[in-house]
Amino acid sequence: MPSPKPPPASPDHTELQFYEALQQGDLDRLMSLWADDEEIVCVHPGGQRLVGSEAIRAAFDAMFSQGAVPVYPEQVRRVQTLDSAVHSVLERVQTLGPDGEPHTGWALATNVYVKTPLGWRMVCHHASPSVTRELAEVTEQPVLLH
Amino acid sequence: MPSPKPPPASPDHTELQFYEALQQGDLDRLMSLWADDEEIVCVHPGGQRLVGSEAIRAAFDAMFSQGAVPVYPEQVRRVQTLDSAVHSVLERVQTLGPDGEPHTGWALATNVYVKTPLGWRMVCHHASPSVTRELAEVTEQPVLLH
Repeated sequence: MPSPKPPPASPDHTELQFYEALQQGDLDRLMSLWADDEEIVCVHPGGQRLVGSEAIRAAFDAMFSQGAVPVYPEQVRRVQTLDSAVHSVLERVQTLGPDGEPHTGWALATNVYVKTPLGWRMVCHHASPSVTRELAEVTEQPVLLH
Repeated sequence: MPSPKPPPASPDHTELQFYEALQQGDLDRLMSLWADDEEIVCVHPGGQRLVGSEAIRAAFDAMFSQGAVPVYPEQVRRVQTLDSAVHSVLERVQTLGPDGEPHTGWALATNVYVKTPLGWRMVCHHASPSVTRELAEVTEQPVLLH
């Protein structure tokens, strides 16, 4: 008898599955990655806060009724503790412009995962519109002394 | 000799200090609440990601040069683990409209804190524009069976 599929072994693995589920419009797989907690939160760029799995599921269901979401994570910044991980992700979104030509949009997402007996699960996805890739990040610049 | 001020005892306490520092335009107090980690991230509604304390400090410094920020946390949703806390906050922002009349704006913020030897420190602040308070949140609605 095959053994059951092991739970996700790392926050990165859960995140990979999250974006694959978006790209494939796979609602059940997407929802299986969230923690079983009444206070899980999802904010899409529209500016509404969805709280709890029922509200989050309904919003992704409506989104997928328009098709899968071609969104790809880039430039991940990570802070990790023993039982949680905070990822800041630059999301590249491939859409069609009004002229029917391919268009690349950008969003910034904060994804938070917690370690549970079932593996690393998502407790927060907060995405908001960003600017172009080149302008999306400001980091510390080393000061050149001369 | 007075003992040194104890570190913040809870994520809520650190969050209270964060919003007080914004309301008072107190840059040093604000920056003292962040964790000592190169990957700390701050996203303001403008859509740029600031990474590291130097970039975050510079942005708040520029903000405070226009005055303190009258922002007040409401409707906090919390997920907590042993050493981290994820807070989703509806931020009420009091501004003056173009006609000089008081105006209330709304933003949604994800604030993440981690437990350190120095107390609970912020590692992520991600704020984005929201809609009115009434529309800002969608939760699970109980289904009435009759």
